[in-house]
Amino acid sequence: MTTEEQVLERIARARGRKARLKDERVTLAHGAGGRATANLVEALFLDAFRNPALEALGDGALLDLGSQRLAVTTDSFVVSPLFFPGGSIGDLAVNGTVNDLAACGSRPLALTAGFVLEEGLPIADLERIVRDMAAAAERAGVPVVTGDTKVVERGKGDGCFVNTTGIGLVRPGVSLSIAGARPGDQVLVSGPIGDHGTTVMVARGELDLAADVRSDTAALGSMVEGLLDATAAVRALRDPTRGGLATVLNEIAVASSVSVLLDERTIPVRPGVAGCCELLGIDPLYVACEGRMVVVVGPEGCEAALGALRAHPLGREAAVVGEISPDPPGLVLLKTAFGGSRIVDMMVGDPLPRIC
Amino acid sequence: MTTEEQVLERIARARGRKARLKDERVTLAHGAGGRATANLVEALFLDAFRNPALEALGDGALLDLGSQRLAVTTDSFVVSPLFFPGGSIGDLAVNGTVNDLAACGSRPLALTAGFVLEEGLPIADLERIVRDMAAAAERAGVPVVTGDTKVVERGKGDGCFVNTTGIGLVRPGVSLSIAGARPGDQVLVSGPIGDHGTTVMVARGELDLAADVRSDTAALGSMVEGLLDATAAVRALRDPTRGGLATVLNEIAVASSVSVLLDERTIPVRPGVAGCCELLGIDPLYVACEGRMVVVVGPEGCEAALGALRAHPLGREAAVVGEISPDPPGLVLLKTAFGGSRIVDMMVGDPLPRIC
Repeated sequence: MTTEEQVLERIARARGRKARLKDERVTLAHGAGGRATANLVEALFLDAFRNPALEALGDGALLDLGSQRLAVTTDSFVVSPLFFPGGSIGDLAVNGTVNDLAACGSRPLALTAGFVLEEGLPIADLERIVRDMAAAAERAGVPVVTGDTKVVERGKGDGCFVNTTGIGLVRPGVSLSIAGARPGDQVLVSGPIGDHGTTVMVARGELDLAADVRSDTAALGSMVEGLLDATAAVRALRDPTRGGLATVLNEIAVASSVSVLLDERTIPVRPGVAGCCELLGIDPLYVACEGRMVVVVGPEGCEAALGALRAHPLGREAAVVGEISPDPPGLVLLKTAFGGSRIVDMMVGDPLPRIC
Repeated sequence: MTTEEQVLERIARARGRKARLKDERVTLAHGAGGRATANLVEALFLDAFRNPALEALGDGALLDLGSQRLAVTTDSFVVSPLFFPGGSIGDLAVNGTVNDLAACGSRPLALTAGFVLEEGLPIADLERIVRDMAAAAERAGVPVVTGDTKVVERGKGDGCFVNTTGIGLVRPGVSLSIAGARPGDQVLVSGPIGDHGTTVMVARGELDLAADVRSDTAALGSMVEGLLDATAAVRALRDPTRGGLATVLNEIAVASSVSVLLDERTIPVRPGVAGCCELLGIDPLYVACEGRMVVVVGPEGCEAALGALRAHPLGREAAVVGEISPDPPGLVLLKTAFGGSRIVDMMVGDPLPRIC
């Protein structure tokens, strides 16, 4: 196909495609957050559970209680190893869910914690994970109100899996949606991308790679509060975890029927992360962050948004990285540092399994 | 120790014990719902996450939103095999969480679903599980509003683990607590005990046992609605899952500082279940149900409660099985069919691993 044909085919898919599952067995790619995950969700889960809250496909669901709106989000964490520079599965499990609540424009009310433990896990490891969760919850200002523990036989699990579900109260008047991006809107990230995914890959020790990298895992609730206080022009928030910045922007492009034009030179990537990614042959655009937020904001609010992000300790390196354009809808395009331009597609396969 | 000493020691433990974890590694018993689970929860989770909602140790936490009260509950399901007579992990994951919401006196508003899949799981199995969840949610009248899917490598999981978290609206005026049992209250179960756990054990096929048993998995929301409509005298509800009726009654005895006097002859057990348990050397009192409710009700409401349960298709075999007594506090005593009496302790170890 010519590039033009590819673009047209992509648009057709983005607009009207009916997802089909061709696989006969679950593969790692189904959990990677890229195209295979999207297909699984659309072909299987959406079809079975069809309801308006689920179909919005945000980072969480919104429940209208009359006088108040609740945000609800759930995430299972299977990161390997359980501990890595900058954090642990315990930090991730709290911060990841708190950030999904923040991306819905909500303040966290309560978290739940569900553990699936493998027989033989050292109690000291579990204790460390639980302490990390408690400390992260304390920092985020949210109580863990209920929990559950199951144990599976040795060889039927991998140490510790944690599910957290978060309930938040949506700020009055705030309505964020990945379908809300409009031409002219600016795209910001709150800091350098790819730190978390790179750190976990290096921590696994399989790559004979030493690098000065550290997970960015952090709870972004107070940063997002400051952002939403600073401007009413925020259209969409999303934390770029599995699948990275590229996947989040593709989801926004498709949901809003717009294109996202990125400028490679403005995307913050730490030298250590860039170096590791080059050695591994991985594009940092697809590498997970666990303490960053992608912000789509109307042009009138861009400066205020950038100022608010940079005023927060977790957003000091925030940057404008792109712009929303009307055409071609459903596509993310990257202007490279060399002056060229390429399509940034959704992630295919799973270059970085079990990073969260 | 004499029996009297045992009783006194037990009371001392129930009243003032400080849980300690002596184990160095996680064992299957930590997930069995008996004493080891209770120790883990008290020594590790309660200590780290200390907050009033968690300390109530109900089937779920209550959140006060001013005009409304929310119930929140979470459960991970790791049952093996994934499919068994009468249901699947999909049914369990929905019904178990719906029943925990019902035990809080709440109507379900929304469920979340978090999957941890093992690479290689047949997509057809996942599809069947998801369809079962959707059908169970439909029957229970609750939408699945958001979800998450992770995949782990072959050998690092066991087909499919499912976490469900449920959010419910507590009925106005209803206040149920396992600490609310008072001397003179009656103890009811909504049907025969042990069906689910026995069925899963037989379905595993390791025991060379064939028996006509079937899981009782069912959503009890509408049955509980009828019960709470019929009488305001209900003090506590709890579904006897892991650890069975014995464990639930021990929790009530300790939380309320009362004793529970059971009459073995009145406890409904199906012949197939009784037969299997005898062959396996397991006491049906410790075997999980997934569609039964334990009800503690003031004597003035006992007849109405029994009538309401029996009027519902899922409660036709409801029975009064015991009574709350002031002494000895923290103990469950069983009057056996032979006229003797014995202490029914909390479950120790895990005779039935991974039944939910």
